Amino acid sequence: MIVVLRLGHRIKRDKRISTHVALVARAFCANEIVFSGDEDRELICSVKKIVSEWGDEFKINYEKNWRNFLKRKKEEGFEIIHLTMYGLPITKLIEKIRISNKDKIIVVGGAKVPGEVYEIADFNVSITNQPHSEVAALAVFLHEFFQGKELEKKFDGKVRIIPQEKGKKIVRN
Amino acid sequence: MIVVLRLGHRIKRDKRISTHVALVARAFCANEIVFSGDEDRELICSVKKIVSEWGDEFKINYEKNWRNFLKRKKEEGFEIIHLTMYGLPITKLIEKIRISNKDKIIVVGGAKVPGEVYEIADFNVSITNQPHSEVAALAVFLHEFFQGKELEKKFDGKVRIIPQEKGKKIVRN
Repeated sequence: MIVVLRLGHRIKRDKRISTHVALVARAFCANEIVFSGDEDRELICSVKKIVSEWGDEFKINYEKNWRNFLKRKKEEGFEIIHLTMYGLPITKLIEKIRISNKDKIIVVGGAKVPGEVYEIADFNVSITNQPHSEVAALAVFLHEFFQGKELEKKFDGKVRIIPQEKGKKIVRN
Repeated sequence: MIVVLRLGHRIKRDKRISTHVALVARAFCANEIVFSGDEDRELICSVKKIVSEWGDEFKINYEKNWRNFLKRKKEEGFEIIHLTMYGLPITKLIEKIRISNKDKIIVVGGAKVPGEVYEIADFNVSITNQPHSEVAALAVFLHEFFQGKELEKKFDGKVRIIPQEKGKKIVRN
């Protein structure tokens, strides 16, 4: 069970980035996205719509109080993985994270991530120590975690793409 | 030589996504980002500022006419790789792309990518056939292309991070 927690969503600035975070979580085989920060019904609706079209189980939720959420999940036995450019390199941690059988919360910021997140996390993982993107960090983390197997997943959507050398082929069931 | 071409930038909607595309290109060891669509000096400035702080060579350019740009580059011997959810799976193509010694343009959309792009591309590559994010697609493509070696790159910036198990450590030269 893999849950992605997106911290500090801001309706005005983050709508598209947060949507990308959610869609990456889904496409790379996480089970759920939880948004924190501003409550944004439009964002939740638009992700739900994509899930209903493109298929498969994927939960979308909002948690006002991410502190309590993380504490609760930790008590339930979840391992907390925080993706941050300040953390230890993924190459050093991924094997350990992969081997552990625990359910996982993957935390991605957010403008300013509070210090507590670094403390409560079991692993602070960097995908390069350069500034780039929480969207990219999440994708590469999940890709490494699943060792590329996530790319083979079949989704049972109403809409499907038949991969083409040139052009587009979409099938609707 | 790897150049990323970001198609169809729109100042009003894409500022942050395009910034993320540029930063991913840099952090994952591409040599240059070229923006097309709206000319956005603020975007170019903000990426240049990050490069000057965090180091290394990375070019940022704007091309009004992406058609001519792609044709010209093709004539110069560049291979054109278009990342699209409609393309053939990366797992099927990456070996072939990796082996070829040619310089590469990696094209990422953009709202509506014109059909010509699929035609001019030597490879239309999908990173899953699910909707997600050009930012994620670019990161996973470069990660696969460089086989994880890009994560080891040292940047010679004024600012550097010393990876930590908990918390943040930044060094300024």
